[in-house]
Amino acid sequence: MMEGSLTLDKMLERAEKLFPIKQIVSRTSSGITRYGYKEMGERTRRISSVLKNLGVKKGDKIGTLAWNDHRHLEAYFGIPSMGAVLHTINIRLSPQHIAYIINHAEDKVLLIDSDFLPLVEAIKDEIPSVQSFILLTDDEELPDSKLEPLYSYERLLDQGDPTFEYTEDIDENDPAGMCYTSATTGLPKGVVYSHRGITLHSMAISLADAAAISESDVCMPVVPMFHANAWGMPFASTWLGSTQVLPGPKFTPALLAELIDQENVTITAGVPTIWLGLLKELETGEKEYDMSSLRAVLCGGSAAPLGMIRKFETKYNIPFIHAYGMTETTPLVTLSRLKSYQDDLAEDDKLAIRSKQGYVVPGLETKVVNDTGEVEWNGEDMGELLVRGPWIADSYYNDERTKDAFQDGWLKTGDIVTIDSEGVIKIADRTKDLVKSGGEWISTIDLENVLMAHDAVFEAAVVGVPHPEWQERPVAAVVLHPNTTATKQELFDYLKPQFAKWWLPDDIIFMEEIPKTSVGKFMKAKLREQLHDQLEV
Amino acid sequence: MMEGSLTLDKMLERAEKLFPIKQIVSRTSSGITRYGYKEMGERTRRISSVLKNLGVKKGDKIGTLAWNDHRHLEAYFGIPSMGAVLHTINIRLSPQHIAYIINHAEDKVLLIDSDFLPLVEAIKDEIPSVQSFILLTDDEELPDSKLEPLYSYERLLDQGDPTFEYTEDIDENDPAGMCYTSATTGLPKGVVYSHRGITLHSMAISLADAAAISESDVCMPVVPMFHANAWGMPFASTWLGSTQVLPGPKFTPALLAELIDQENVTITAGVPTIWLGLLKELETGEKEYDMSSLRAVLCGGSAAPLGMIRKFETKYNIPFIHAYGMTETTPLVTLSRLKSYQDDLAEDDKLAIRSKQGYVVPGLETKVVNDTGEVEWNGEDMGELLVRGPWIADSYYNDERTKDAFQDGWLKTGDIVTIDSEGVIKIADRTKDLVKSGGEWISTIDLENVLMAHDAVFEAAVVGVPHPEWQERPVAAVVLHPNTTATKQELFDYLKPQFAKWWLPDDIIFMEEIPKTSVGKFMKAKLREQLHDQLEV
Repeated sequence: MMEGSLTLDKMLERAEKLFPIKQIVSRTSSGITRYGYKEMGERTRRISSVLKNLGVKKGDKIGTLAWNDHRHLEAYFGIPSMGAVLHTINIRLSPQHIAYIINHAEDKVLLIDSDFLPLVEAIKDEIPSVQSFILLTDDEELPDSKLEPLYSYERLLDQGDPTFEYTEDIDENDPAGMCYTSATTGLPKGVVYSHRGITLHSMAISLADAAAISESDVCMPVVPMFHANAWGMPFASTWLGSTQVLPGPKFTPALLAELIDQENVTITAGVPTIWLGLLKELETGEKEYDMSSLRAVLCGGSAAPLGMIRKFETKYNIPFIHAYGMTETTPLVTLSRLKSYQDDLAEDDKLAIRSKQGYVVPGLETKVVNDTGEVEWNGEDMGELLVRGPWIADSYYNDERTKDAFQDGWLKTGDIVTIDSEGVIKIADRTKDLVKSGGEWISTIDLENVLMAHDAVFEAAVVGVPHPEWQERPVAAVVLHPNTTATKQELFDYLKPQFAKWWLPDDIIFMEEIPKTSVGKFMKAKLREQLHDQLEV
Repeated sequence: MMEGSLTLDKMLERAEKLFPIKQIVSRTSSGITRYGYKEMGERTRRISSVLKNLGVKKGDKIGTLAWNDHRHLEAYFGIPSMGAVLHTINIRLSPQHIAYIINHAEDKVLLIDSDFLPLVEAIKDEIPSVQSFILLTDDEELPDSKLEPLYSYERLLDQGDPTFEYTEDIDENDPAGMCYTSATTGLPKGVVYSHRGITLHSMAISLADAAAISESDVCMPVVPMFHANAWGMPFASTWLGSTQVLPGPKFTPALLAELIDQENVTITAGVPTIWLGLLKELETGEKEYDMSSLRAVLCGGSAAPLGMIRKFETKYNIPFIHAYGMTETTPLVTLSRLKSYQDDLAEDDKLAIRSKQGYVVPGLETKVVNDTGEVEWNGEDMGELLVRGPWIADSYYNDERTKDAFQDGWLKTGDIVTIDSEGVIKIADRTKDLVKSGGEWISTIDLENVLMAHDAVFEAAVVGVPHPEWQERPVAAVVLHPNTTATKQELFDYLKPQFAKWWLPDDIIFMEEIPKTSVGKFMKAKLREQLHDQLEV
């Protein structure tokens, strides 16, 4: 068989040739831009030629601080296709961390949306590797800026070559992109994506049994393009010639609903928070929206509340697909679809299966292990999820923490899961959050989910606190809804019938707010400290 | 990213673990066998362990002379997963050619369906590389045979290890299978399939925009498993956990209709002849069949008559998907699907597009070239189709003819095609059959298709005959339906409005029969000789 050829320039070329008139709909701060893959290809080739003229060479890292829009999409293909590396920077990290990752990756050029110009200006003296700054803006004039040299993306394109050919000798195992994990503790860790990994991942998510992305789809990634490649959707959609809708900066739930309605979006992807917002807009917003074009909502990042999925599906007829992955896995690992022989189950049983993380997609392997080896597939025994396969990272970029996470050819995800007799995985906890009580494990996520299903509870986080006899015991921190009340005893009475006795928290503590990270995840280390203080008092 | 791992043992393992109860329905000479992927996996591991005990080593070729049934499926995985090479032998080749390819591949073991025992016995002295013969049969007792040593597959399985582990160090580029082309002239040519090629091909055919093979499908490959891996369907179906229906030996159209009806087949694949037979059974057979489970009929191998597609779709509501490929391409290259913006075209226009060969699937590249370079995408200019990509052969196995077919990294398909503005390919002719008249090309297939659409014409073949002035001129050989008449003049009058004047055949010659190859293709070289004699008289 012929070798090689799983490279991103091939994906772009297919879209240019076969789908020149299929549209990319891009929302920027100045409105909506529309063009076809022919024009997208020409602009992509222009930016590649310009970067080459700026001295960018094979293997150089190019950082992007950008929203989901057409220019970012051009960077997605223009940078890797010329042999350089697309470094998507998570703009929600702290300025210190952003400076750290730009330095760590040694970015040579930064592509910056004008919204992030102040951010980059503030750290400009800390990022000496950057030789050129390119501003992503519709404005004709460049603003006054401390960055030097600062170019306008559009003015550079004017000088670019729309017929630029990708002749760089790229091996499919060469790096195409990189992304740093958003750390809850410590410094961000860099993950490098190869051309091969991205290509295979694009195939995998487009399988009929995965997200089934097709030419006939109108794909709207709401998950940011700076977060695990927007789950690979822009790559797959381009390859297959789907229409793309890129929702741009600072969108609201109302705006997303409007885009779905107006552009006839068929598939969209994002974290549960986004869909909670959309649901609220549908239920209480002023406008009526037509959501009937939607055939699938991909939901991942964290576990989606069952009640939300039920409401979307029964009230609005919008099918949810729960998925699991992480920055290290490009990201798709599992996807929750019923098996055909489960079609006859009761609706609630089906929903219970589909609210789990699902089973592994073709091309990857998973196993669930604890101290004694692989756990039984009984849906009860907990173990850490290990993953391997051709779109799984094999290391962190220049990082000593590689040896902790990558062992014997497997990625240790740090997620504690159960696996049932159908091979369906359910996240029970993060390794570091799990409560180890008397040699047994207690899932904080299970306790939190049940607590948060209580009418009076707005948020709940459970952490393990040291215990002289049992090693650790769970304690729950609870934030109540405004204008509601619930006593400690009421909550204990509510929990009791739902858990084994030894799973029940030793205490429930009411708080004003639970500390969170920049991306909205519970900051359990900090909570543990706070509770520690409180419990000792 | 992690490397490697695109190997067939991974596919099998996924089916065993995730789909243990999904069924394989296999028809053999003694009836229908049903089992799940758990049992299929155990039997597959048994046969691997047995072959190892028989001395089979990594890289050894194992030949199969077998129908589409469960034992052949076990060989599909059991042989490559242990590092050996599955050589599927086309049992419709002449005994001389079968002996040639067994020798050329140096098959070490042969798996033989009892139907082909006499065939192998007849050539036994000509195939010295074969050390063991294994009989695929349900019979308890082995028949008397000249083959030595001859084993019973089922008795060997009894001794095999159902937990045999695939620990052989296999690289994804290692050979997994091989298949020889059915030659119309000269000796058969061997094509070697790698683990990687088969895996990527399995992904490609399962994409939503290709055949969309899914766990929920009931897949019935009618195309033989000795012919380009039954178009890859057994590999993909196993990987994805689809139900499989394997129709076994000597099936009739009535039997296929019954299997579709009884087993609720959702997707099937085969050559146009098969579907012509099925159509006749549906129209004139004694029984009524329920075909409503079918969501797709994959049709390839040669061009499907438009009238047949129309009848299947309008009368029986059975959607056809036209595809193109060859032994050298694993085989899928193009697949005929409408683009979403073509949905509003008139039914006849859509059918006209879908009766072409379609556009290239993701992962491959095609180009169409003539003497002056790439042809325009205008649907008129003819050129040879070139293909490249990770599931395209890069050579013929130990064969000097490699240098003719593989040039500059491309496979020259030998097919003359047009490509239209949408990138849709239409086969005009085989290179060697094309008529070159006065520097211009005439498609014999176009002439034949129009002739065969005439009510009185049963078969028509057009060949080029030497001409002193024009180099070559087309001559048509026509076989009329029994009990019908048509004069030469009538046929000329019928052709005239449909072609440019210089495309019209110089003569139309009525015949009793057109010479054909073992697989039912016109043997144009022989026809050319016959006509040559007739024209000189």
